[in-house]
Amino acid sequence: MDFIKQNIDKYKDRYIEELLELLRIPSVSADPKYKEACFATAEAVSHKMKDAGLDNVEIMSTPGFPVVYGEKMIDKNLPTILVYGHYDVQPADPLNLWHSPPFEPIIKDEKIFARGACDDKGQMFMHVKALEIMLENNALPCNVKMIVEGEEEVGSDNLGEFIAKYKEKLACDVVLVSDTSIIANDVPSVTVGLRGLCYMEVEVTGPNRDLHSGVYGGAVPNPINALCEMIAKMKDENDYITIDQFYDDVIELSDNERKAMNEAPFSLDDYKKDLKLADIRGEKGYTTLERTSIRPTIDVNGIWGGYIGEGAKTVLPSKAFAKISMRLVPNQSSEKIAKLFEDYFIKIAPPSVHVSVKAHHGGEPVVTPTDSVAYKAAEKAMETTFGKKPIPQRGGGSIPIVALFEAELNAKTVLMGFGLDSDDIHSPNEHYGIFNFLKGIETIPYFYKYYAEMF
Amino acid sequence: MDFIKQNIDKYKDRYIEELLELLRIPSVSADPKYKEACFATAEAVSHKMKDAGLDNVEIMSTPGFPVVYGEKMIDKNLPTILVYGHYDVQPADPLNLWHSPPFEPIIKDEKIFARGACDDKGQMFMHVKALEIMLENNALPCNVKMIVEGEEEVGSDNLGEFIAKYKEKLACDVVLVSDTSIIANDVPSVTVGLRGLCYMEVEVTGPNRDLHSGVYGGAVPNPINALCEMIAKMKDENDYITIDQFYDDVIELSDNERKAMNEAPFSLDDYKKDLKLADIRGEKGYTTLERTSIRPTIDVNGIWGGYIGEGAKTVLPSKAFAKISMRLVPNQSSEKIAKLFEDYFIKIAPPSVHVSVKAHHGGEPVVTPTDSVAYKAAEKAMETTFGKKPIPQRGGGSIPIVALFEAELNAKTVLMGFGLDSDDIHSPNEHYGIFNFLKGIETIPYFYKYYAEMF
Repeated sequence: MDFIKQNIDKYKDRYIEELLELLRIPSVSADPKYKEACFATAEAVSHKMKDAGLDNVEIMSTPGFPVVYGEKMIDKNLPTILVYGHYDVQPADPLNLWHSPPFEPIIKDEKIFARGACDDKGQMFMHVKALEIMLENNALPCNVKMIVEGEEEVGSDNLGEFIAKYKEKLACDVVLVSDTSIIANDVPSVTVGLRGLCYMEVEVTGPNRDLHSGVYGGAVPNPINALCEMIAKMKDENDYITIDQFYDDVIELSDNERKAMNEAPFSLDDYKKDLKLADIRGEKGYTTLERTSIRPTIDVNGIWGGYIGEGAKTVLPSKAFAKISMRLVPNQSSEKIAKLFEDYFIKIAPPSVHVSVKAHHGGEPVVTPTDSVAYKAAEKAMETTFGKKPIPQRGGGSIPIVALFEAELNAKTVLMGFGLDSDDIHSPNEHYGIFNFLKGIETIPYFYKYYAEMF
Repeated sequence: MDFIKQNIDKYKDRYIEELLELLRIPSVSADPKYKEACFATAEAVSHKMKDAGLDNVEIMSTPGFPVVYGEKMIDKNLPTILVYGHYDVQPADPLNLWHSPPFEPIIKDEKIFARGACDDKGQMFMHVKALEIMLENNALPCNVKMIVEGEEEVGSDNLGEFIAKYKEKLACDVVLVSDTSIIANDVPSVTVGLRGLCYMEVEVTGPNRDLHSGVYGGAVPNPINALCEMIAKMKDENDYITIDQFYDDVIELSDNERKAMNEAPFSLDDYKKDLKLADIRGEKGYTTLERTSIRPTIDVNGIWGGYIGEGAKTVLPSKAFAKISMRLVPNQSSEKIAKLFEDYFIKIAPPSVHVSVKAHHGGEPVVTPTDSVAYKAAEKAMETTFGKKPIPQRGGGSIPIVALFEAELNAKTVLMGFGLDSDDIHSPNEHYGIFNFLKGIETIPYFYKYYAEMF
């Protein structure tokens, strides 16, 4: 299939320019003020699908942001691959830490810098271009359907219903997703496991109004102090999570499994240097690779309360807030954990304050068997284009919808991503290597080929 | 001196209207964007002093906001009273909790609602009007100097040097300040003690940039979690402050002193009801009145870090911040406590994070002897206008400059304030009772009288 490389060499500048067009639209699904931008991005993605030669392209509405659908059905006797991606992106703040505006993409050091460059516009768009190449050359060896949603970064709240509603339309043999990373550009890997997510928001109330800390300080419960005490109580001195029954459903890996995963290339010194860390910190008894993949976590993602402006204000505030999320591992349920968190948070609240807890989106953890045809096809495709066998890897992030596909479409998902952990997705200066972008476009067609052959 | 009441009855509407003029200027000293408003307020105050008949009124510049000066020297053989007040106000946020705009004063239920209505524009302006009455009626029995500064809410950083520089000009026998409260409108009191203040700001850094909480969560120190742990470590289960040597200089009151102060009218039920508190909370072994006056405290005044916008962002942040202040009691030194705080904060920081600590303004605690001429004059003045002897009271707040006057001018300060603890100074919907405003104007001239007589 030499035409693949030839097409890429010939058209790569256009491929990149087209991606930049998508990156210029600020499709931040979490922030209401970008609502129009999200709809505009769906519009733009649908045009790209049509240009690539997909049939029956349509923007399918949901109670939230729409899903863009396109397909190429060759022969109903051939296997069908459902490609999934998302066009929404994470909020860009803190804006002051970006070296260039998040929605004015620039290319520097062979990397594309913009919010969404990697997660997931860049990776999603690789599939559109891979299809373009295969269709131009009448070389598509199987049926392909593609859906691109706009609510992944806020928990894909409407996708479950959507998939259930369009079961027939979305029927497929396997789901292919590029929203994960490889270990390094010369160390390809396929993600075979993902953590789930349980994201909570808490509010702690002391007095009914902000007070003068001199007049009332010492006698009135300070909600910030109380919230800090409660957050501190969520882990013990070994960084075990102390929420009652939190670990009950966690499946411990065998020593061999742990040994195998710790053989992946990893340098703790480089890790600490890259993050300028005085030291790492995590659950006692586990390595960094384990802490970020096979172990559940709890992190405060945001906290605020009282006076946060310039200078000094001697206020004893009425309220304090925090966003707290937990990463879950196979067999834990986000719904169950949300309940355990709420019970524990209420249980440890000092009697002098009022607390309220609400759950944002959740997602279930998943594992893909490495002996499946789908995994083998991905392995062979990467081996062909990278020149070496990819390493099966557990990812620390969450793609809540993977569990959905299995439940609703009874199809396994292959997580063949091409990003790097150092791409700063969800951080200022998110970027995506041009090498990775083009390598993805090159590799995806081989997945089609080998999957069709081995099916 | 019946003319006092007569003047008040005749002109009270004008007095109030003039105060509202001052309240319309947003002189928030903590926030740079109100810089011009602060200078404009100094200008306005100087006009009010001239209109009242004060001599040599001038706006005296400092490295920060200017001090407005005015005087009326009758006879160098008569005692001289230095009146102190401030024209700057606390920030108004959270703005959404105000029932009417903070700088568009309104009158409701016989109260003036606006930021600064009580603290301290309202109380400062009582002195201007009291002087106007006495001068109009050629009844001033002593010399009066008045200074109104613009940096009290940010720690009066430049006033120390100012007073030292103008020692001669400000020479006086006593300092009179109205920036405190009475127990109730039918229970007058004079503040004989104030707490000091030590205000710190801390920064905790984990990784060098915001990270994806899925990719890194579990292995990287989260600065918010770390900050919360550290704040939780600042008090023990009895709400004793755990900073090393924190209590070393605290002077314990005698049982009799404690008994006396606890005889002040106070209802814990009303207190809890007013603040809608599930329960009070404070240092074990002390009453609410003691916790808010004779005991030191630590309160987080503000905290922020990570994602605090709409919805959910799965970020593991790089930094977390907090503003933390301590109220100090007689014999504690704000400078020494700042050092102890910094040492302790660094000591309890987990090795995996970097911390930095900086001190905002501080202020020293003070006590006024109840057997002084100045106190007796205030007592008699209030007894005359309220019809009952005021109760000597320790205040929980801080007026850092009181210690300055003693050091630089060798003059004691009388804290004869007319506000109420329920005036919501430093909170949304700050207000000042018209009764209190007029009662202050009526009482101040009697302080002149009795002080001159007893001197």
